[in-house]
Amino acid sequence: MISYQEAYAQVLAHPLAMGEECVSLLDSVGRMLAEDVFADRDFPPFNRATKDGIALNFESYAAGQRTFAIQGVAPAGMPQQTLVQDQHCIEVMTGAVVPLGTDTVVMYEHLEIKEGVATIVQEVKKGQNIHYKGSDELAGTKLLSTGTPISAVEIGILASVGKAKVQVFALPRVCAVATGDELVDIDEVPLPHQIRRSNSITLQAALSAYGIRAKAMHLLDDKKSIAQGLERALAENDVLLLSGGVSKGKYDYIPEVMEQLGVEKIFHRVAQRPGKPFWFGVHKATDTIIFSFPGNPVSTFANFHLYFKPWLHTSWKLPVPEKTIKLKGTLEILPPLTRFMQVTEEWSGGTLYAKLVMENGSGDLTSLAKADGFIRLEPRDFPYEYGEEVPYVPTRIRK
Amino acid sequence: MISYQEAYAQVLAHPLAMGEECVSLLDSVGRMLAEDVFADRDFPPFNRATKDGIALNFESYAAGQRTFAIQGVAPAGMPQQTLVQDQHCIEVMTGAVVPLGTDTVVMYEHLEIKEGVATIVQEVKKGQNIHYKGSDELAGTKLLSTGTPISAVEIGILASVGKAKVQVFALPRVCAVATGDELVDIDEVPLPHQIRRSNSITLQAALSAYGIRAKAMHLLDDKKSIAQGLERALAENDVLLLSGGVSKGKYDYIPEVMEQLGVEKIFHRVAQRPGKPFWFGVHKATDTIIFSFPGNPVSTFANFHLYFKPWLHTSWKLPVPEKTIKLKGTLEILPPLTRFMQVTEEWSGGTLYAKLVMENGSGDLTSLAKADGFIRLEPRDFPYEYGEEVPYVPTRIRK
Repeated sequence: MISYQEAYAQVLAHPLAMGEECVSLLDSVGRMLAEDVFADRDFPPFNRATKDGIALNFESYAAGQRTFAIQGVAPAGMPQQTLVQDQHCIEVMTGAVVPLGTDTVVMYEHLEIKEGVATIVQEVKKGQNIHYKGSDELAGTKLLSTGTPISAVEIGILASVGKAKVQVFALPRVCAVATGDELVDIDEVPLPHQIRRSNSITLQAALSAYGIRAKAMHLLDDKKSIAQGLERALAENDVLLLSGGVSKGKYDYIPEVMEQLGVEKIFHRVAQRPGKPFWFGVHKATDTIIFSFPGNPVSTFANFHLYFKPWLHTSWKLPVPEKTIKLKGTLEILPPLTRFMQVTEEWSGGTLYAKLVMENGSGDLTSLAKADGFIRLEPRDFPYEYGEEVPYVPTRIRK
Repeated sequence: MISYQEAYAQVLAHPLAMGEECVSLLDSVGRMLAEDVFADRDFPPFNRATKDGIALNFESYAAGQRTFAIQGVAPAGMPQQTLVQDQHCIEVMTGAVVPLGTDTVVMYEHLEIKEGVATIVQEVKKGQNIHYKGSDELAGTKLLSTGTPISAVEIGILASVGKAKVQVFALPRVCAVATGDELVDIDEVPLPHQIRRSNSITLQAALSAYGIRAKAMHLLDDKKSIAQGLERALAENDVLLLSGGVSKGKYDYIPEVMEQLGVEKIFHRVAQRPGKPFWFGVHKATDTIIFSFPGNPVSTFANFHLYFKPWLHTSWKLPVPEKTIKLKGTLEILPPLTRFMQVTEEWSGGTLYAKLVMENGSGDLTSLAKADGFIRLEPRDFPYEYGEEVPYVPTRIRK
């Protein structure tokens, strides 16, 4: 048995080279950018009117002129116009190119317009209401970096620089493998001694947040069918997420079959609760990483967030998000196990507090629905105090 | 012009009756549950062994017995077995039904087994290592309520109660309509006075977080084509999200055409920055809600989060998420406009702080990529102080 810290370090020491792929812009939402993106032109690309009104040469205004004959109209989307006479003006619309020979825009609210002549009724400052070429970013500036998660704003920026297709990190091929004779399909009515399969679809759902469409597989507690199933799964996937079959039971064949199939065991059993019988291995022949979680729902769900997600970020060469939270309550954590406890988030005065969820052991699936994440508590010989800041692993996605 | 508070109240006063639909379980991730979900049986459904080892009758142990002949094995997934003789035991595997006649499970780590006889080498407590029938939830208990956002854990619970199909709130049919002659397609090379279309695809991307696959439409600044386009869009959609064409320009035909088409204007122009020229209306004939945002990228993006998202939650009869953040810095907000300022989140000691993003006006698309959300600041005659708690609208989804 190894410590949580050792197990975590071992998992991160076995990343997968993910590769990249090119997807259409809208399909890249939720993916990780795999290229640096540069401004292809200045932002904005021209001196842009930011108000509807007139454009004029400020020198005329400075010289005392207040009425300006309107030479014409410059709508958005029209090539740049030229003011022919300094004493005239051109009507400009928001988004239009500020005409050559003008340097200042006066909005309609500060004008009276009558018979083709605009009279200024408010003070004007030189250069006002113009969004200057290149004032946001200059052409060639890096706007987005490799490793950026692509959300709506990044889509807007990618669109504006013409990236109809985007280079993103490839997604691993993942299979969620449930084991156990007691499991039946979701649409079946279980016999009294059976339960419905929930871990593999929970993992599929959690993976879908990353755009990963995982396959699912069910293996009975029979050495031969486990061997056949795993051999196929290893050949077809980059990652296997197993649940069940790694405890000390007579029918917990996973570790033995893994060895038969040439999977290198990196570790088995971690000094933590829940999730102690976690088995982790690497199959060099097929370049597959195997996370074999204990079958209890809380154990599987905790270990997915504690190990698989940091591993995924690391494989994509992205930083692993780290967060803390303040304890609402006191508690004692005695040696030897690192504890992961379910909490709900409570906001108070801009501070995030963790309130413990009452749970009934690691088989208690329903407790998960009440929790927002897990806090990590190392064992120690004095209590954790109210308000103490502790590491926090959120398990919900907020919109 | 109305206040932000009035505008917000008006938008929420015009929800849409969304209806419901039934989708397959895995497709329900990210959707909002539209039914209460109950435990169809006790959780767990039987007294379940939580460790691999032996099950025995505690009375024999209490009477001093330490060696137990093994009657047989009870794997997970097998109907309940019966202990025939109180002085014997049955090997049980994690997940198995605890046999009739036994009430305590001793794990292998606390046993020595030799020639069919188990000897207990550690103290045993009555009832240990059993996850009792109904101890998490009793049959008939409500496990999930209408309005719950469905994430991975809810999928697990729905699976375990046999919901292969789930009732969820229907999604509105949405069209993102960009207006403006200056806009060209993403894959085009714009002329010097043109820019690429980015607002409509940004809205499509933001909507995809809710599972909404919005259509997109581009209208030129021409009254006739605007009328034709909008008429079709009204007929085919529940919601239109327009950007551009609502300012005071000569070619800002949207308000006029809306009136022609029988759309009732609820308000136009809000005392806020950015996003002041926001136009909001309702088309009773087609039951369509129209959010017409100003065309600047920051204005469109801000108003989407400030108005559309709360409207969507309200239409689904869900609470609108409300959050606060502490200011990192001081600033003055003078009357008359409510200000929405872009900030990045900074965590410090479990507290969330807002750091202002340097931006260059509401045309500054690139500033959005640096921000995590908007803070809302009402104008007042004394400064906002460092550490002050203010309303916060996050615009990023964290995984």
